[in-house]
Amino acid sequence: MEALLSERVEILVRFNEADPLGIVWHGHYVRYFEDGREAFGNKFGLRYLDIFANGYTVPVVHVDCNYKRSLRYGDSVIVETRYVPTPAAKIRFEYTLYNATTHEIVATGASVQVFLDKSTQTLQLILPKFFEQWKQQHALS
Amino acid sequence: MEALLSERVEILVRFNEADPLGIVWHGHYVRYFEDGREAFGNKFGLRYLDIFANGYTVPVVHVDCNYKRSLRYGDSVIVETRYVPTPAAKIRFEYTLYNATTHEIVATGASVQVFLDKSTQTLQLILPKFFEQWKQQHALS
Amino acid sequence: MEALLSERVEILVRFNEADPLGIVWHGHYVRYFEDGREAFGNKFGLRYLDIFANGYTVPVVHVDCNYKRSLRYGDSVIVETRYVPTPAAKIRFEYTLYNATTHEIVATGASVQVFLDKSTQTLQLILPKFFEQWKQQHALS
Amino acid sequence: MEALLSERVEILVRFNEADPLGIVWHGHYVRYFEDGREAFGNKFGLRYLDIFANGYTVPVVHVDCNYKRSLRYGDSVIVETRYVPTPAAKIRFEYTLYNATTHEIVATGASVQVFLDKSTQTLQLILPKFFEQWKQQHALS
Repeated sequence: MEALLSERVEILVRFNEADPLGIVWHGHYVRYFEDGREAFGNKFGLRYLDIFANGYTVPVVHVDCNYKRSLRYGDSVIVETRYVPTPAAKIRFEYTLYNATTHEIVATGASVQVFLDKSTQTLQLILPKFFEQWKQQHALS
Repeated sequence: MEALLSERVEILVRFNEADPLGIVWHGHYVRYFEDGREAFGNKFGLRYLDIFANGYTVPVVHVDCNYKRSLRYGDSVIVETRYVPTPAAKIRFEYTLYNATTHEIVATGASVQVFLDKSTQTLQLILPKFFEQWKQQHALS
Repeated sequence: MEALLSERVEILVRFNEADPLGIVWHGHYVRYFEDGREAFGNKFGLRYLDIFANGYTVPVVHVDCNYKRSLRYGDSVIVETRYVPTPAAKIRFEYTLYNATTHEIVATGASVQVFLDKSTQTLQLILPKFFEQWKQQHALS
Repeated sequence: MEALLSERVEILVRFNEADPLGIVWHGHYVRYFEDGREAFGNKFGLRYLDIFANGYTVPVVHVDCNYKRSLRYGDSVIVETRYVPTPAAKIRFEYTLYNATTHEIVATGASVQVFLDKSTQTLQLILPKFFEQWKQQHALS
């Protein structure tokens, strides 16, 4: 059986993130996802800076988001970020966003990242060793 | 046969849109999509302000983006926005982003919007009349 | 003798806030100021929502910032927000930003806000009563 | 008598730039200033990329803005950017923002940039040669 790695972080909605209709502009959710990945990386030793130090960058090649409920200024959102193992040389995260007060689901989404060699910018078709090791350390197949 | 409505707009990449790796941060593409919808709305009489004037708001309930190539500061991106007819009470747009110089595809994506009554905030399960008329005016089934 | 009201809040620099030179784009500091005001408002009962509830909005009419040192991705910034009493019907805040690790001053700045009646949008030439009371509660002349 | 270098650029206010009060969030004006500098640089051969090519970066060390009138979604803003000669090893721009429809002044502001050697990051206390030449080419003392 496989470990499931996930982390939660709470983010306060900023006044300037809400639009003239009073609700958070949908584009900001992509940043909430990034905040989620950042919190995940801090917890599990997978920050961007760790990845750079190993000689790679991990550009996002896919993102999707489904919006269920609005967020407003004054709300606080909880971003749950789950690492989803994949056989490909990719990193897949799935996200669930909750309203911190009502605990209702606000949005769900996913992102996929690939590995580029930092100096040559070459796409890696097999998983870099450092990432294989990271997976093993966290009992991920 | 059905008309295909689409519009193109060119956007200059801003210095502050590129990240420390020198490439445009992926979250900005969602804004490029919105700029594309705006240009589409200006051309075909479907601006947010037109929609508000008809008593509705059209929140985005889904967005996805697939990234093919990087954009850098100094690049210019062409956003092609296509209206994709759907039987549901929704608005679906698909996007193709091109590098204005190389004409290579930079990204593809889609967005879905629903109709809310502006005063009651009720989700509309059938298409508002003004939008039916808009479709007829543009020979969309 | 007068009380000096101030509050500190720590903000993690986001990856997407740094530009191709690796340093935080200068425009983001204005948002750090707003995060500072927000933290101040939470501590001293002067949140935007409190102000709206009293029937006023407080648009920013002036902002300035002097940049002393760079911030980079991975850095954390401490925003110190100080309320500076003024005889005019205005709210003046001054800010000092510190690098959370080195404690060096990163930037200093100020903002000025005025009071508008929320329904009539009229500029208030004398201080609204609720704000007079807020000042008295905090022993400000 | 000295030449006065200036350039104007028109910017459409984006829906997501307006806040829950319906007006453009004040922090976005700093980006309008940058768009103004960019347009100025394109006209007079002083783009960031030109400056980098000469071996320098020009970080902003000061910015200020005074807000006179609100901008709303649907408005268009004209940014006038003027180069203001200074004896110091600095670049000073002043800005006037107009509502494109009413021609009323929306905001005024200024920014100051210094020169850093791109490789050593050293602050330049005397004007780099390329910039002296740029000034001479444009009849600036």
